[in-house]
Amino acid sequence: MAVDYQSLAVKGVQALSPYQPGKPIDELARELGLNPSEIIKLASNENPLGPSEKAMTAARKALDEMCLYPDGNGFELKQALSHRFGVEMDQITLGNGSNDVLEVIARCFADADSDVVFSQYAFAVYPIVAQAIGARGISVPARDWGHDLDAMADAVTDRTKLVFVANPNNPTGTVHTRQALEGFLDRIPERVLVVLDEAYCEYLVGDEYPDGIQLLDRYPNLIVCRTFSKAWGLAALRVGYTVSSPAIADILNRVRQPFNVDTVALCAATAVLSDEAYLQKSREVNEAGLRQLADGFDRMGLPYIPSVGNFIAVEVGESAMGVYQALLAHGVIVRPVAGYGMPRHLRVSVGLPHENERFLDALAEALTSAGQGA
Amino acid sequence: MAVDYQSLAVKGVQALSPYQPGKPIDELARELGLNPSEIIKLASNENPLGPSEKAMTAARKALDEMCLYPDGNGFELKQALSHRFGVEMDQITLGNGSNDVLEVIARCFADADSDVVFSQYAFAVYPIVAQAIGARGISVPARDWGHDLDAMADAVTDRTKLVFVANPNNPTGTVHTRQALEGFLDRIPERVLVVLDEAYCEYLVGDEYPDGIQLLDRYPNLIVCRTFSKAWGLAALRVGYTVSSPAIADILNRVRQPFNVDTVALCAATAVLSDEAYLQKSREVNEAGLRQLADGFDRMGLPYIPSVGNFIAVEVGESAMGVYQALLAHGVIVRPVAGYGMPRHLRVSVGLPHENERFLDALAEALTSAGQGA
Repeated sequence: MAVDYQSLAVKGVQALSPYQPGKPIDELARELGLNPSEIIKLASNENPLGPSEKAMTAARKALDEMCLYPDGNGFELKQALSHRFGVEMDQITLGNGSNDVLEVIARCFADADSDVVFSQYAFAVYPIVAQAIGARGISVPARDWGHDLDAMADAVTDRTKLVFVANPNNPTGTVHTRQALEGFLDRIPERVLVVLDEAYCEYLVGDEYPDGIQLLDRYPNLIVCRTFSKAWGLAALRVGYTVSSPAIADILNRVRQPFNVDTVALCAATAVLSDEAYLQKSREVNEAGLRQLADGFDRMGLPYIPSVGNFIAVEVGESAMGVYQALLAHGVIVRPVAGYGMPRHLRVSVGLPHENERFLDALAEALTSAGQGA
Repeated sequence: MAVDYQSLAVKGVQALSPYQPGKPIDELARELGLNPSEIIKLASNENPLGPSEKAMTAARKALDEMCLYPDGNGFELKQALSHRFGVEMDQITLGNGSNDVLEVIARCFADADSDVVFSQYAFAVYPIVAQAIGARGISVPARDWGHDLDAMADAVTDRTKLVFVANPNNPTGTVHTRQALEGFLDRIPERVLVVLDEAYCEYLVGDEYPDGIQLLDRYPNLIVCRTFSKAWGLAALRVGYTVSSPAIADILNRVRQPFNVDTVALCAATAVLSDEAYLQKSREVNEAGLRQLADGFDRMGLPYIPSVGNFIAVEVGESAMGVYQALLAHGVIVRPVAGYGMPRHLRVSVGLPHENERFLDALAEALTSAGQGA
């Protein structure tokens, strides 16, 4: 009798539904027979500015080393991060995007006997990495689309090994103040690790928001995750990192694949860290785009979740999937978030002004046609 | 009392010693105050030819997409692999180097209740990925430095979930014929997955050697792993893949990180697959280099393990670490293999003719000085 290979997988994996990424431009182009240049993608919270020139120059140069393995220790990037943030190099763990470090953290510190706590409407990778190792994921109901930090602290038990907190949160764009976060951290036992995912922190402006790295001295159970995929504009190259105590970093670095970050990524990330003008411009474009989108939604009478990220979740109603499909037909890719338990919303990333405008126009038409079709 | 965070790690991880990569050129340059261009590295089985022009052109072009996430499905690369090998796209799983797919396989199909079988003197990543998930690694004593396939088949029990077979094997360069491999596969129960690691298969010349992909129809429990890091010359970019049944690939693709292979890597790998001239040249340079190194060892009276890979393990005696250090002082990086249980050997990768010559000269001097020092 033929073996059912799916049944041979470990239990957590058998039940696993993989992460659903935003639809790639080339894929839609193939499906619709469109030219890729006619399509705009506001689906993956990418930086609409295009590459930093400093990153590009470094990446091009790095290609000369194509045949050689990367520096598995990521010396130069760690050195640059260490200087920027005033931490020691042995506090840093590099990852193939922050997805990689999130997964490595789960594999290091949780197993089939563990609980992993996260919020409703939080990043899909948290439940996925918990599920893959057979841990029990505890999804704590959100409050006003954001994390209910009190309820999350209440959810911690003896079984809890990890708590994931996204600040700002994706896909809702909500954020907690430093005071609120510190109040939460004060309630978490030291033996429970808190993973503070700051993928979108570069967009935060204002003293009232926390900087996780500044909190590490007070909270040794904290692991701060960041990424070069958003404000730094390197999504294609896959670089994320954590900052933690050296003891935690030592554990993470044992499990991290030795060459998890490639040479081009290491060099581009090192270079972009010195491109303050690019970061500043990214923030400005994002701030203006958030206003442009919010104004558009206001004009259309569409509710949306106020966001501090580089995206907004807008409520388009019961026919959200129909609106999504209609937008695709207009060559505009956004992100359905039904998988996040938000079937009435679509998440749209902030683009350049003309992209935001084209999206808003297409949305108005899509709402009309979806309304007619329903 | 302060929490000991290392003690919070899962058991397998607590006992884990990470993979030791070859020493990077820049690291040695920093240590010795040398110019990196004065150093030759024959430590990581990299392609000494330098990049394929086709890969370079595609990689440069791909950098324009730096801000956008990669195609998580790797459509174009899978299509190119599918055409080259006559397999379906849904049989392919892409990885961030073959290290990534090896790890994903272990995480999908083995856990703390499993045995994972591999050979003595085999690739260090097999025991590491087993250890990280708490599985029991069964190291089967080698025969003449190669896998003892009979003993490996004998080692399979009800607990065995995976058997790793490297053909050719690294770091010993040994290889099995098709007949021997088929005889082994005939003995393995269908419910036990055999991971056939063909990282070095492109260097094999001769009908007597197996092509794992050709065996998939007969052995549905087979997973063939390959890499672009060796003969294809893309070690910096991290691309590996498996070919298996669609059912197994479906499982692997659930656990694989959605963007585990970056855009530059996807594009370069797709392009290099059409560069037959590069592959041919890689083989020729390797064949000549293997001869050059073997001749040099013969002249020095040093025993070596005959190799079909792009490296040779040469026996330099009890002072192998001293010889390694002396070579470093000459600006020549090779690989100590004491961690593989081969404390009398060094593994040297095949370089360009002048690199091989410089290594052989440095080795002669190092042996003299190490001999004097001992």
